[in-house]
Amino acid sequence: MSHVYRLVISCPDQVGIVASVAQYIADLGGTIVEANHHTDAANNWFFMRHEILAGSLRGGLDAFAQGFKKLADAFEMQWHISDSAKPKKIALFASKESHCLADLLHRWHEKELPGEVVCVIANHDDLRSMAEWYQVPFHHIPVTPETKPQAFSETEQLVEQYGAEVIVLARYMQILPPQMCKDYTGQVINIHHSFLPSFVGARPYHQASERGVKLIGATCHYVTEVLDAGPIIEQDVIRISHAHSIDDMKRLGRDVEKTVLARGLRFHLEDRVLIHGNKTVVFDV
Amino acid sequence: MSHVYRLVISCPDQVGIVASVAQYIADLGGTIVEANHHTDAANNWFFMRHEILAGSLRGGLDAFAQGFKKLADAFEMQWHISDSAKPKKIALFASKESHCLADLLHRWHEKELPGEVVCVIANHDDLRSMAEWYQVPFHHIPVTPETKPQAFSETEQLVEQYGAEVIVLARYMQILPPQMCKDYTGQVINIHHSFLPSFVGARPYHQASERGVKLIGATCHYVTEVLDAGPIIEQDVIRISHAHSIDDMKRLGRDVEKTVLARGLRFHLEDRVLIHGNKTVVFDV
Amino acid sequence: MSHVYRLVISCPDQVGIVASVAQYIADLGGTIVEANHHTDAANNWFFMRHEILAGSLRGGLDAFAQGFKKLADAFEMQWHISDSAKPKKIALFASKESHCLADLLHRWHEKELPGEVVCVIANHDDLRSMAEWYQVPFHHIPVTPETKPQAFSETEQLVEQYGAEVIVLARYMQILPPQMCKDYTGQVINIHHSFLPSFVGARPYHQASERGVKLIGATCHYVTEVLDAGPIIEQDVIRISHAHSIDDMKRLGRDVEKTVLARGLRFHLEDRVLIHGNKTVVFDV
Amino acid sequence: MSHVYRLVISCPDQVGIVASVAQYIADLGGTIVEANHHTDAANNWFFMRHEILAGSLRGGLDAFAQGFKKLADAFEMQWHISDSAKPKKIALFASKESHCLADLLHRWHEKELPGEVVCVIANHDDLRSMAEWYQVPFHHIPVTPETKPQAFSETEQLVEQYGAEVIVLARYMQILPPQMCKDYTGQVINIHHSFLPSFVGARPYHQASERGVKLIGATCHYVTEVLDAGPIIEQDVIRISHAHSIDDMKRLGRDVEKTVLARGLRFHLEDRVLIHGNKTVVFDV
Repeated sequence: MSHVYRLVISCPDQVGIVASVAQYIADLGGTIVEANHHTDAANNWFFMRHEILAGSLRGGLDAFAQGFKKLADAFEMQWHISDSAKPKKIALFASKESHCLADLLHRWHEKELPGEVVCVIANHDDLRSMAEWYQVPFHHIPVTPETKPQAFSETEQLVEQYGAEVIVLARYMQILPPQMCKDYTGQVINIHHSFLPSFVGARPYHQASERGVKLIGATCHYVTEVLDAGPIIEQDVIRISHAHSIDDMKRLGRDVEKTVLARGLRFHLEDRVLIHGNKTVVFDV
Repeated sequence: MSHVYRLVISCPDQVGIVASVAQYIADLGGTIVEANHHTDAANNWFFMRHEILAGSLRGGLDAFAQGFKKLADAFEMQWHISDSAKPKKIALFASKESHCLADLLHRWHEKELPGEVVCVIANHDDLRSMAEWYQVPFHHIPVTPETKPQAFSETEQLVEQYGAEVIVLARYMQILPPQMCKDYTGQVINIHHSFLPSFVGARPYHQASERGVKLIGATCHYVTEVLDAGPIIEQDVIRISHAHSIDDMKRLGRDVEKTVLARGLRFHLEDRVLIHGNKTVVFDV
Repeated sequence: MSHVYRLVISCPDQVGIVASVAQYIADLGGTIVEANHHTDAANNWFFMRHEILAGSLRGGLDAFAQGFKKLADAFEMQWHISDSAKPKKIALFASKESHCLADLLHRWHEKELPGEVVCVIANHDDLRSMAEWYQVPFHHIPVTPETKPQAFSETEQLVEQYGAEVIVLARYMQILPPQMCKDYTGQVINIHHSFLPSFVGARPYHQASERGVKLIGATCHYVTEVLDAGPIIEQDVIRISHAHSIDDMKRLGRDVEKTVLARGLRFHLEDRVLIHGNKTVVFDV
Repeated sequence: MSHVYRLVISCPDQVGIVASVAQYIADLGGTIVEANHHTDAANNWFFMRHEILAGSLRGGLDAFAQGFKKLADAFEMQWHISDSAKPKKIALFASKESHCLADLLHRWHEKELPGEVVCVIANHDDLRSMAEWYQVPFHHIPVTPETKPQAFSETEQLVEQYGAEVIVLARYMQILPPQMCKDYTGQVINIHHSFLPSFVGARPYHQASERGVKLIGATCHYVTEVLDAGPIIEQDVIRISHAHSIDDMKRLGRDVEKTVLARGLRFHLEDRVLIHGNKTVVFDV
């Protein structure tokens, strides 16, 4: 993977944004290796993402940012630029089920995941040795109705301590406290084992079996205070039939869950996801 | 397509059903060209479907049916046997949108659909010439809140008069009266333009856009008194992104709608669908 | 659909292309509603497509084109700009099988296809009444080994006479003469009923059955002198099993064929396909 | 998972097979939990698979087998019956790439794989610690052109010593010697990273990129003496575009490879795959 800067912008739409930004980049000698635009015509809002070859940009990131402010103000941009050489730090939250955790740790270990796993926090101790094989610190923080406030206070401290910028609920079976959802808006990614908005909440495969659907799915989304209702990043489905028991659905579903979570997380880590209201723009490749 | 009889059975599960049925067929010389079984372990219920080469069955359908009664009683079977040479008669209900109607008429015309289209009934007159090119009688019965009872009384008379055994709501934008849903239980097939149970009711693509899903779908299901809640026969989805407007979703969705409806209808016409509670067993090929 | 101009560019890659083009558009007040870029790093080649709101562009198309030449020369661009209000003229070539022809005619009739069907040319007379229902001129030009040169000479005359800019081989079972392939480079679109490069040539479903594959597919591609080897625009597949006969494969395959052809053709008609060597860049939405 | 016996039969087709087999099972009190049949009409050959609840079968497996011989001879059956409580022993062959090995080991560890991994044999030492974390013996047998005969002689000895019944080439980058292919006919499963028969041999993603296909795939097949030409068990594909580099294709392809291999292997381990000539019948659930 080349060393790139990722410039992400959203602002009210008007004529001249692309020209101004492209000219600014060109003036610094920047080579654009990927560019994506989107105009939300209904809301007159504009979204843009560029990948710029780091080595090509005269003056580097600081010079870029300093000069860009004026432009950004003129167009009322929300923007940030990130450096692929400084991968986002990830805290993985897990419980007992290992498929999502194992999948993410393996991708990270194989340098497929463009982020840095800094710790695993789990409400059960079962997956400790797996995390430790990958040489990732593992913290067992049990959560019971009584200890929940204390447990999440500890959890947040750990997240802060590790400097984690992304929290991934890799089949973590606990609901985060509302305040934590607020504090980490746009930073907590969950995998829900249904094709949302169908089958919100507990035991979605049982719900799916009850309704007799012919496809089951998984949804990767940002966590908000409302259960399973945050902005959707990625979804996929798999075909089932009457012949599949709920156990079969769980088995087949695991493959969809881990793939959808890995895809969604990669999009987030590469700054490909722009949240807009309760929806996302995903500049996928 | 070979001339076959389709024997469809459901009954409480017990040892010996397959053996007894297979022996009965073998005793009459019947060649089985397709056989499917399913046991619903949770409900201890058994489902079976056989296709038997018509020419191979000594004594034909009547002899078969007569002798089979005893066996059927012993195992408390619900059963029926149908003749592929007597395709089910289909009434197509349409409105203004043509994609599902055009698709079904074309498949029927090309002898792909194992049924016989006997009439088109529509609440607008727009699709008359299309039906007439296919030499299918077209009846325009407008439906307004005031005329609804009268309109559906006429509609039912037409269905009876044509001897239609299946009613297909090919994007027919009216809700059938509850009594009609009851009278034709398991005989009315609808296509809903969402992946049910998500986005029940009106304007599902608007609902999908609102929620920001990454896949849109279509559901072919039997109509019951509860809107969009009947047994599901077939579903499929297609990938969308932020770049797709609601008009794009409608355009892409039409392809899924017509394909899912055609598949679901074929399953029904070939007696591949067994309704069980609010779910279906579909012995698909 | 809005009235837009589509500006399509390919040229050697260098810094400043996007800025220059975007600035040129902005200077004329042009509102960009869709923009796509791609850099082929291996070949150092750049591809770009813009949709510009027609009403927003001061001076219209002629002013744009005149001024753009200088810019285009500076960057050694191959470029063209097309007007969505002047849809490309399409000649549909067919034989006996109707599914692709019926599908395209229906989409065109429903104003879904962003092109204008000007004639149907077929080597059999079977589909005449279908074309005529859509009020499209139908020409029956039989092709035999003896009459082939004469037949294709007539065919080309018709294509010229109708001013067709795109030829669609909608399951036309004849191989075009090499000279015609050359004359219409990048203008003839074929649908091949396999997932190319597997199963080139005749009877691909038989070949697929012979090899025992678990998926069958269809490929929409530009026609070149080498059979089934031209640049691929679009492909898709569908799952099959041992239970599917060759007739089943044909039936299931028809749905994939017509969908893939319709998608590929739409991409071409909207100037979304850029041919580069024997490959394509498809700026799909 | 219930304890079941799996009865797998293939024989010339004739009337009465199903009846005789079902009667035989019923006479021993056997509860059938899954049954699948297939008739290959072109070759007049019949295939059948039953899952029988172990506890329900009077006299157990030995009594069944003894009595069944007479029936099997009468119908000229090839048949075997296996016991889900005696999972097949698996030797995993690997090289340097870990994704397939990691995936299979994890599934096995989580008791998802209905088999028993007895050893890993690799031509590089890189994956030793991964195998050892799962407490699976790891053998490093380097293969060079000079040492190939000796290396495979050692390899076969290990396979024998561990009593492995299935060899899985989990991205093992060596071609097995012809004699070993023969000795283990129907027991060696490979994953090839293309949608066969496209892109046989080395570097299929490079071949795919060269041809400009719009989907890439993976194929799980039995190994025969002819490279990448054995009976196909399972295949799948994933969509790509011009925007994907060969590295992207490798990354995306890994997910398809491991999923297709895991599915194909599960089918084999549960005796769901019947080889017939160079094709397979797969009684999938």
